[in-house]
Amino acid sequence: MIFELHQAISILERTPGVLKSLLFDVGEEWSTANEGRDSWSPFDVVGHLIHGENTDWLVRTQHILEHGPEIPFEPYDRFAQFENSKGKNFEDLLNEFEMLRAKNIKTLKSLNLTNDDFERKGMHPGLGEVTLSQLLSAWVVHDLGHIAQISRVLAKHYKNEVGPWTQYLTILNFTPKE
Amino acid sequence: MIFELHQAISILERTPGVLKSLLFDVGEEWSTANEGRDSWSPFDVVGHLIHGENTDWLVRTQHILEHGPEIPFEPYDRFAQFENSKGKNFEDLLNEFEMLRAKNIKTLKSLNLTNDDFERKGMHPGLGEVTLSQLLSAWVVHDLGHIAQISRVLAKHYKNEVGPWTQYLTILNFTPKE
Repeated sequence: MIFELHQAISILERTPGVLKSLLFDVGEEWSTANEGRDSWSPFDVVGHLIHGENTDWLVRTQHILEHGPEIPFEPYDRFAQFENSKGKNFEDLLNEFEMLRAKNIKTLKSLNLTNDDFERKGMHPGLGEVTLSQLLSAWVVHDLGHIAQISRVLAKHYKNEVGPWTQYLTILNFTPKE
Repeated sequence: MIFELHQAISILERTPGVLKSLLFDVGEEWSTANEGRDSWSPFDVVGHLIHGENTDWLVRTQHILEHGPEIPFEPYDRFAQFENSKGKNFEDLLNEFEMLRAKNIKTLKSLNLTNDDFERKGMHPGLGEVTLSQLLSAWVVHDLGHIAQISRVLAKHYKNEVGPWTQYLTILNFTPKE
Protein backbone atom coordinates (compact mmCIF):
# COMPACT_ATOMS: atom_id res chain seq x y z
CA MET A 1 0.00 0.00 0.00
CA ILE A 2 1.37 3.40 -0.97
CA PHE A 3 -1.60 5.32 0.48
CA GLU A 4 -0.59 7.98 2.97
CA LEU A 5 -3.16 10.33 4.46
CA HIS A 6 -1.04 13.46 4.27
CA GLN A 7 -0.39 12.81 0.56
CA ALA A 8 -4.05 12.16 -0.17
CA ILE A 9 -4.97 15.36 1.65
CA SER A 10 -2.32 17.30 -0.28
CA ILE A 11 -4.07 16.35 -3.54
CA LEU A 12 -7.62 16.86 -2.20
CA GLU A 13 -6.71 20.35 -0.96
CA ARG A 14 -5.53 21.35 -4.43
CA THR A 15 -8.70 20.60 -6.39
CA PRO A 16 -10.67 23.80 -5.68
CA GLY A 17 -7.67 25.92 -6.71
CA VAL A 18 -7.13 23.86 -9.85
CA LEU A 19 -10.78 24.27 -10.83
CA LYS A 20 -10.78 27.99 -10.12
CA SER A 21 -7.58 28.51 -12.14
CA LEU A 22 -9.11 26.61 -15.03
CA LEU A 23 -12.69 27.84 -14.86
CA PHE A 24 -13.37 30.98 -12.82
CA ASP A 25 -14.88 33.65 -15.08
CA VAL A 26 -14.18 31.47 -18.12
CA GLY A 27 -17.55 32.41 -19.62
CA GLU A 28 -20.72 30.46 -20.24
CA GLU A 29 -19.62 29.24 -23.67
CA TRP A 30 -16.95 27.09 -21.99
CA SER A 31 -18.63 26.33 -18.65
CA THR A 32 -21.78 24.89 -20.25
CA ALA A 33 -20.14 23.07 -23.18
CA ASN A 34 -20.44 19.31 -23.02
CA GLU A 35 -19.49 16.28 -25.11
CA GLY A 36 -22.88 15.81 -26.68
CA ARG A 37 -25.96 13.80 -25.74
CA ASP A 38 -26.33 13.51 -21.95
CA SER A 39 -22.64 14.13 -21.18
CA TRP A 40 -21.66 16.63 -18.48
CA SER A 41 -20.46 20.22 -18.76
CA PRO A 42 -17.96 21.79 -16.33
CA PHE A 43 -21.03 23.35 -14.65
CA ASP A 44 -22.52 19.88 -14.13
CA VAL A 45 -19.25 18.41 -12.86
CA VAL A 46 -18.69 21.12 -10.24
CA GLY A 47 -22.26 20.55 -9.01
CA HIS A 48 -21.51 16.83 -8.80
CA LEU A 49 -18.35 17.53 -6.76
CA ILE A 50 -20.39 19.73 -4.38
CA HIS A 51 -22.89 16.93 -3.87
CA GLY A 52 -19.96 14.59 -3.15
CA GLU A 53 -18.72 16.93 -0.42
CA ASN A 54 -22.18 17.08 1.11
CA THR A 55 -23.17 13.42 0.96
CA ASP A 56 -20.38 11.10 -0.09
CA TRP A 57 -16.70 10.98 0.86
CA LEU A 58 -16.45 12.48 4.32
CA VAL A 59 -19.94 11.25 5.25
CA ARG A 60 -18.90 7.70 4.35
CA THR A 61 -15.63 8.07 6.25
CA GLN A 62 -17.60 8.95 9.37
CA HIS A 63 -20.07 6.15 8.59
CA ILE A 64 -17.25 3.58 8.55
CA LEU A 65 -15.88 4.84 11.87
CA GLU A 66 -19.33 4.73 13.43
CA HIS A 67 -20.99 1.66 11.92
CA GLY A 68 -18.27 -0.42 10.23
CA PRO A 69 -19.68 -2.71 7.55
CA GLU A 70 -22.92 -3.43 9.42
CA ILE A 71 -24.96 -0.67 7.81
CA PRO A 72 -24.28 -0.07 4.09
CA PHE A 73 -23.54 3.49 2.85
CA GLU A 74 -26.44 5.50 1.48
CA PRO A 75 -26.37 5.13 -2.32
CA TYR A 76 -24.81 8.17 -4.01
CA ASP A 77 -27.03 10.17 -6.35
CA ARG A 78 -24.95 10.84 -9.47
CA PHE A 79 -27.60 13.14 -10.90
CA ALA A 80 -28.43 15.33 -7.89
CA GLN A 81 -26.58 18.30 -9.40
CA PHE A 82 -29.13 18.68 -12.17
CA GLU A 83 -31.66 19.74 -9.54
CA ASN A 84 -29.31 21.30 -6.98
CA SER A 85 -27.36 23.56 -9.36
CA LYS A 86 -30.41 24.81 -11.22
CA GLY A 87 -30.33 28.59 -11.64
CA LYS A 88 -27.04 28.93 -9.79
CA ASN A 89 -24.12 31.03 -10.94
CA PHE A 90 -21.05 29.01 -11.97
CA GLU A 91 -18.63 31.15 -9.97
CA ASP A 92 -20.82 30.66 -6.89
CA LEU A 93 -20.60 26.89 -7.41
CA LEU A 94 -16.80 27.08 -7.61
CA ASN A 95 -16.71 29.09 -4.37
CA GLU A 96 -19.18 26.73 -2.69
CA PHE A 97 -17.05 23.72 -3.61
CA GLU A 98 -13.93 25.46 -2.27
CA MET A 99 -15.64 26.26 1.02
CA LEU A 100 -17.08 22.74 1.46
CA ARG A 101 -13.79 21.05 0.60
CA ALA A 102 -11.86 23.20 3.09
CA LYS A 103 -14.42 22.40 5.80
CA ASN A 104 -14.30 18.66 5.03
CA ILE A 105 -10.50 18.51 5.01
CA LYS A 106 -10.46 20.27 8.36
CA THR A 107 -12.88 17.66 9.75
CA LEU A 108 -10.89 14.83 8.14
CA LYS A 109 -7.71 16.04 9.82
CA SER A 110 -9.50 16.36 13.16
CA LEU A 111 -10.39 12.65 13.06
CA ASN A 112 -6.68 11.84 13.69
CA LEU A 113 -6.93 8.64 11.69
CA THR A 114 -4.30 5.97 12.36
CA ASN A 115 -2.92 3.21 10.15
CA ASP A 116 -5.26 0.79 11.93
CA ASP A 117 -8.23 2.96 11.00
CA PHE A 118 -7.33 2.73 7.29
CA GLU A 119 -8.09 -1.01 7.43
CA ARG A 120 -11.55 -0.49 8.92
CA LYS A 121 -14.32 -1.75 6.70
CA GLY A 122 -17.48 -0.33 5.28
CA MET A 123 -20.21 -1.74 3.06
CA HIS A 124 -20.68 -0.05 -0.32
CA PRO A 125 -24.21 -0.59 -1.69
CA GLY A 126 -22.85 -1.52 -5.14
CA LEU A 127 -19.24 -2.61 -4.58
CA GLY A 128 -19.54 -4.61 -1.35
CA GLU A 129 -16.86 -4.51 1.33
CA VAL A 130 -14.35 -1.67 1.09
CA THR A 131 -11.71 -0.27 3.44
CA LEU A 132 -11.32 3.29 4.69
CA SER A 133 -8.05 3.73 2.79
CA GLN A 134 -9.78 2.58 -0.41
CA LEU A 135 -12.53 5.15 0.18
CA LEU A 136 -10.04 7.96 0.77
CA SER A 137 -7.97 6.90 -2.27
CA ALA A 138 -11.11 6.80 -4.40
CA TRP A 139 -11.90 10.36 -3.27
CA VAL A 140 -8.50 11.47 -4.63
CA VAL A 141 -8.86 9.57 -7.91
CA HIS A 142 -12.43 10.81 -8.33
CA ASP A 143 -11.20 14.43 -8.12
CA LEU A 144 -8.45 13.83 -10.65
CA GLY A 145 -10.82 12.00 -13.00
CA HIS A 146 -13.13 14.97 -13.04
CA ILE A 147 -10.28 17.44 -13.60
CA ALA A 148 -9.28 15.34 -16.61
CA GLN A 149 -12.90 15.21 -17.76
CA ILE A 150 -13.29 18.99 -17.53
CA SER A 151 -10.06 19.56 -19.48
CA ARG A 152 -11.32 17.18 -22.15
CA VAL A 153 -14.72 18.90 -22.37
CA LEU A 154 -13.02 22.28 -22.77
CA ALA A 155 -10.67 20.85 -25.41
CA LYS A 156 -13.58 19.43 -27.38
CA HIS A 157 -15.15 22.87 -27.53
CA TYR A 158 -12.40 23.53 -30.13
CA LYS A 159 -12.79 20.16 -31.86
CA ASN A 160 -13.71 21.68 -35.22
CA GLU A 161 -11.27 24.57 -34.90
CA VAL A 162 -8.00 22.67 -35.08
CA GLY A 163 -8.38 21.34 -38.63
CA PRO A 164 -5.82 18.65 -39.50
CA TRP A 165 -4.37 18.75 -35.96
CA THR A 166 -7.23 16.48 -34.86
CA GLN A 167 -5.12 13.44 -35.64
CA TYR A 168 -2.32 14.51 -33.27
CA LEU A 169 -4.57 15.76 -30.46
CA THR A 170 -5.81 12.43 -29.18
CA ILE A 171 -7.91 14.00 -26.43
CA LEU A 172 -10.38 15.10 -29.11
CA ASN A 173 -11.07 11.51 -30.11
CA PHE A 174 -11.85 10.23 -26.64
CA THR A 175 -15.44 9.10 -26.08
CA PRO A 176 -16.65 9.63 -22.53
CA LYS A 177 -17.96 6.80 -20.40
CA GLU A 178 -18.38 8.64 -17.12
CA MET B 1 -15.82 28.99 -36.79
CA ILE B 2 -16.17 29.64 -33.07
CA PHE B 3 -12.48 30.54 -32.61
CA GLU B 4 -11.95 33.93 -30.99
CA LEU B 5 -8.49 35.13 -30.06
CA HIS B 6 -9.44 36.64 -26.71
CA GLN B 7 -11.09 33.36 -25.69
CA ALA B 8 -8.11 31.28 -26.81
CA ILE B 9 -5.80 33.60 -24.87
CA SER B 10 -8.03 33.36 -21.79
CA ILE B 11 -7.46 29.58 -21.74
CA LEU B 12 -3.76 29.75 -22.61
CA GLU B 13 -3.14 32.23 -19.79
CA ARG B 14 -4.68 29.85 -17.25
CA THR B 15 -2.47 26.82 -17.87
CA PRO B 16 0.57 27.81 -15.74
CA GLY B 17 -1.72 28.53 -12.77
CA VAL B 18 -3.60 25.28 -13.24
CA LEU B 19 -0.35 23.32 -13.31
CA LYS B 20 1.05 25.11 -10.27
CA SER B 21 -2.18 24.52 -8.31
CA LEU B 22 -2.04 20.85 -9.20
CA LEU B 23 1.69 20.20 -8.96
CA PHE B 24 3.80 22.79 -7.12
CA ASP B 25 5.56 21.09 -4.19
CA VAL B 26 3.52 17.94 -4.77
CA GLY B 27 6.59 15.78 -4.11
CA GLU B 28 8.71 13.57 -6.32
CA GLU B 29 6.53 10.51 -5.80
CA TRP B 30 3.75 12.22 -7.79
CA SER B 31 5.78 14.40 -10.16
CA THR B 32 7.84 11.50 -11.51
CA ALA B 33 5.08 8.85 -11.60
CA ASN B 34 4.14 7.73 -15.11
CA GLU B 35 1.79 5.23 -16.75
CA GLY B 36 4.42 2.55 -17.32
CA ARG B 37 6.78 1.76 -20.18
CA ASP B 38 7.85 4.93 -22.01
CA SER B 39 4.85 7.05 -20.93
CA TRP B 40 5.40 10.53 -19.53
CA SER B 41 5.41 11.80 -15.96
CA PRO B 42 4.19 15.29 -14.96
CA PHE B 43 7.90 16.25 -14.91
CA ASP B 44 8.24 15.15 -18.55
CA VAL B 45 5.03 16.89 -19.63
CA VAL B 46 6.01 20.25 -18.12
CA GLY B 47 9.37 20.00 -19.92
CA HIS B 48 7.49 19.27 -23.14
CA LEU B 49 5.28 22.34 -22.62
CA ILE B 50 8.41 24.49 -22.04
CA HIS B 51 9.89 23.24 -25.31
CA GLY B 52 6.61 24.11 -27.02
CA GLU B 53 6.85 27.70 -25.73
CA ASN B 54 10.42 27.97 -26.99
CA THR B 55 10.10 26.35 -30.40
CA ASP B 56 6.52 25.63 -31.43
CA TRP B 57 3.34 27.64 -31.10
CA LEU B 58 4.38 31.28 -31.07
CA VAL B 59 7.38 30.57 -33.31
CA ARG B 60 5.06 29.00 -35.89
CA THR B 61 2.61 31.89 -35.57
CA GLN B 62 5.41 34.30 -36.47
CA HIS B 63 6.56 31.91 -39.22
CA ILE B 64 3.11 32.00 -40.86
CA LEU B 65 3.02 35.81 -40.74
CA GLU B 66 6.50 36.02 -42.23
CA HIS B 67 6.66 33.17 -44.73
CA GLY B 68 3.10 31.91 -45.31
CA PRO B 69 3.04 28.34 -46.61
CA GLU B 70 6.21 28.71 -48.73
CA ILE B 71 8.62 27.46 -46.08
CA PRO B 72 7.37 24.55 -43.90
CA PHE B 73 7.58 24.82 -40.10
CA GLU B 74 10.60 23.26 -38.42
CA PRO B 75 9.54 19.79 -37.22
CA TYR B 76 8.74 19.75 -33.49
CA ASP B 77 10.91 17.57 -31.28
CA ARG B 78 8.51 15.68 -29.00
CA PHE B 79 11.38 14.25 -26.99
CA ALA B 80 13.54 17.34 -26.39
CA GLN B 81 12.50 17.53 -22.75
CA PHE B 82 14.32 14.32 -21.88
CA GLU B 83 17.60 16.15 -22.54
CA ASN B 84 16.53 19.71 -21.63
CA SER B 85 14.94 18.93 -18.25
CA LYS B 86 17.75 16.66 -17.08
CA GLY B 87 18.83 17.49 -13.54
CA LYS B 88 16.33 20.32 -13.21
CA ASN B 89 14.10 20.90 -10.23
CA PHE B 90 10.39 20.37 -10.93
CA GLU B 91 9.32 23.62 -9.27
CA ASP B 92 11.87 25.50 -11.42
CA LEU B 93 10.30 23.94 -14.52
CA LEU B 94 6.83 25.08 -13.42
CA ASN B 95 8.14 28.61 -12.89
CA GLU B 96 10.00 28.55 -16.21
CA PHE B 97 6.85 27.51 -18.05
CA GLU B 98 4.87 30.27 -16.32
CA MET B 99 7.44 32.89 -17.31
CA LEU B 100 7.69 31.71 -20.93
CA ARG B 101 3.93 31.50 -21.37
CA ALA B 102 3.43 35.03 -20.00
CA LYS B 103 6.11 36.35 -22.35
CA ASN B 104 4.60 34.53 -25.34
CA ILE B 105 1.06 35.72 -24.64
CA LYS B 106 2.38 39.26 -24.36
CA THR B 107 4.03 38.90 -27.78
CA LEU B 108 0.91 37.25 -29.24
CA LYS B 109 -1.22 40.18 -28.09
CA SER B 110 1.28 42.67 -29.54
CA LEU B 111 0.84 41.13 -33.00
CA ASN B 112 -2.68 42.65 -33.14
CA LEU B 113 -3.96 39.79 -35.26
CA THR B 114 -7.11 40.42 -37.30
CA ASN B 115 -9.79 38.06 -38.60
CA ASP B 116 -8.05 38.11 -41.97
CA ASP B 117 -4.80 36.97 -40.34
CA PHE B 118 -6.53 33.92 -38.89
CA GLU B 119 -7.06 32.62 -42.44
CA ARG B 120 -3.38 32.96 -43.35
CA LYS B 121 -1.75 29.67 -44.21
CA GLY B 122 1.31 27.80 -43.09
CA MET B 123 2.83 24.48 -44.08
CA HIS B 124 3.06 21.85 -41.36
CA PRO B 125 5.81 19.29 -42.07
CA GLY B 126 3.50 16.37 -41.25
CA LEU B 127 -0.04 17.72 -41.63
CA GLY B 128 0.29 19.89 -44.75
CA GLU B 129 -1.53 23.19 -45.11
CA VAL B 130 -2.95 24.70 -41.94
CA THR B 131 -4.37 28.10 -41.03
CA LEU B 132 -3.27 30.44 -38.26
CA SER B 133 -6.54 29.96 -36.37
CA GLN B 134 -6.07 26.19 -36.54
CA LEU B 135 -2.58 26.61 -35.10
CA LEU B 136 -3.80 28.82 -32.25
CA SER B 137 -6.73 26.48 -31.54
CA ALA B 138 -4.36 23.51 -31.50
CA TRP B 139 -2.21 25.36 -28.94
CA VAL B 140 -5.26 25.61 -26.64
CA VAL B 141 -6.30 21.98 -27.13
CA HIS B 142 -2.71 20.82 -26.66
CA ASP B 143 -2.59 22.54 -23.24
CA LEU B 144 -5.89 21.00 -22.16
CA GLY B 145 -4.84 17.56 -23.39
CA HIS B 146 -1.74 17.69 -21.24
CA ILE B 147 -3.68 18.90 -18.19
CA ALA B 148 -5.96 15.88 -18.65
CA GLN B 149 -2.94 13.63 -19.13
CA ILE B 150 -1.27 14.88 -15.93
CA SER B 151 -4.49 14.39 -13.94
CA ARG B 152 -4.72 10.85 -15.29
CA VAL B 153 -1.09 10.06 -14.43
CA LEU B 154 -1.63 11.32 -10.87
CA ALA B 155 -4.84 9.29 -10.59
CA LYS B 156 -3.09 6.13 -11.72
CA HIS B 157 -0.54 6.56 -8.96
CA TYR B 158 -3.43 5.36 -6.73
CA LYS B 159 -4.57 2.64 -9.15
CA ASN B 160 -3.99 -0.18 -6.67
CA GLU B 161 -5.19 1.81 -3.66
CA VAL B 162 -8.86 2.13 -4.56
CA GLY B 163 -9.74 -1.58 -4.43
CA PRO B 164 -13.18 -2.35 -5.89
CA TRP B 165 -13.67 1.32 -6.88
CA THR B 166 -11.54 0.65 -9.99
CA GLN B 167 -14.66 -0.29 -11.92
CA TYR B 168 -16.34 3.08 -11.27
CA LEU B 169 -13.25 5.25 -11.76
CA THR B 170 -12.92 4.91 -15.52
CA ILE B 171 -9.85 7.17 -15.67
CA LEU B 172 -7.83 4.31 -14.19
CA ASN B 173 -8.61 2.07 -17.13
CA PHE B 174 -7.54 4.51 -19.83
CA THR B 175 -4.48 3.46 -21.85
CA PRO B 176 -2.39 6.38 -23.05
CA LYS B 177 -1.64 6.95 -26.71
CA GLU B 178 0.15 10.31 -26.45
